[in-house]
Amino acid sequence: MQRYFLNKPIIDTIKLKAGNDIFNHFGKVLRAKVGSKAEFVSDSLEIFVGEVVSVDSETININVINQYHSDVELPVQVTLVVSPLKNDRSDWFIQKATELGVNKIIFTSMKRTVVDWQKQQDKKLKRFKKIAQAAAEQAHRLIIPSIEFLTWQEMLLSPKHTGIVAWEESARDGETSMLIKAVSEVPSDEIFMVVFGPEGGLTETEVDKLQIHGFSLAGLGPRILRAETAPLYTMSAISVLRELR
Amino acid sequence: MQRYFLNKPIIDTIKLKAGNDIFNHFGKVLRAKVGSKAEFVSDSLEIFVGEVVSVDSETININVINQYHSDVELPVQVTLVVSPLKNDRSDWFIQKATELGVNKIIFTSMKRTVVDWQKQQDKKLKRFKKIAQAAAEQAHRLIIPSIEFLTWQEMLLSPKHTGIVAWEESARDGETSMLIKAVSEVPSDEIFMVVFGPEGGLTETEVDKLQIHGFSLAGLGPRILRAETAPLYTMSAISVLRELR
Repeated sequence: MQRYFLNKPIIDTIKLKAGNDIFNHFGKVLRAKVGSKAEFVSDSLEIFVGEVVSVDSETININVINQYHSDVELPVQVTLVVSPLKNDRSDWFIQKATELGVNKIIFTSMKRTVVDWQKQQDKKLKRFKKIAQAAAEQAHRLIIPSIEFLTWQEMLLSPKHTGIVAWEESARDGETSMLIKAVSEVPSDEIFMVVFGPEGGLTETEVDKLQIHGFSLAGLGPRILRAETAPLYTMSAISVLRELR
Repeated sequence: MQRYFLNKPIIDTIKLKAGNDIFNHFGKVLRAKVGSKAEFVSDSLEIFVGEVVSVDSETININVINQYHSDVELPVQVTLVVSPLKNDRSDWFIQKATELGVNKIIFTSMKRTVVDWQKQQDKKLKRFKKIAQAAAEQAHRLIIPSIEFLTWQEMLLSPKHTGIVAWEESARDGETSMLIKAVSEVPSDEIFMVVFGPEGGLTETEVDKLQIHGFSLAGLGPRILRAETAPLYTMSAISVLRELR
């Protein structure tokens, strides 16, 4: 069943007005008619199953026929910090990270970042938010991950309980235990922040800075993962270690 | 450093001839000149660092200046079975699965598969092999994963030590331990085979058939993962559970 984020309280009925994104998708793309059903997430993260009782060109009226709670969010709040990525790699990174349960994505320009979004930043952000929303609906999540563009310094000062840096050199040195240790020890509902370098990697200076700000170095296994693959590996690791036992 | 698969024994020197793929990439794309270096993997999976001693339009002559062994392959041989996927999703699935260490990818048409490659199968296979090779070079792996198109019946009879099916219904029933159990118990160097359904999911009949052929049902956590994301989650899980301790 299609899921929509209403971001409002829901009681017995839902009214969708023309012009609204959900009206457009449910009414025009899915051609909702009397009897059509969909799921709506309220601002209190409850799920309401709604059934269409009337449709016209201006309004879709929906009755709530069921309500339930579903625990599909990761037990820790994961913030992923990545460099802007080339071509459509940012798009699908956002889609996949959202499916895998990310809470917040921070794009930060790093020393070896080669992509410059300066002028298109607002357009990019709008696009990325749409991708995250569609992916969250598709994965049947309760929240849409937030996406931010921060400076390196703002990122360093972002709130976190535990921070790690995925660093290739750590992997090369055979560091294999930090990711598991950090993921296993972060308390539920706390923020787990993971920083990934751009294609060319983080500089030593950047890694030093991150360590001063409380980030630990972690290896992600012996193979070299691309900038957009390493965060997906990490998201999967967090799910395996926190949800599959 | 760029890595190439030579698939031949290497002793003291390497000669690349015009027309050869490696000649084209190293010579023309990377414009190798005297002193340029690259890594070459021999048929015995040893890595040789080579330095160019002469280049002309017909031949690149390379001297071996170093040799080493590197253990970057997953300790178990993972075979992923997936349905043909829409648009470019197959392409990037192959790239990511290769980075994450897959040994073999089997494409099989399933009951709810909507993509039909019948006529383009040879072209697709050629393209997929190139993607796998480039990703294996980039990830600094020692082998290029093999890619096969098999019928459902051929797939069921493929060799394996342990087989699991990622099934959404298992996840919905709260099954959370089979993946970890199966990954932890498969002996090193044995074949671990994982079957994933198409976008619409596997049918009950298909799941029954897989169980008769020795596959166990496994859930991949509470969120709904797309057909191409679930295998990447599984590959990451295998690495975390077998390589990160």
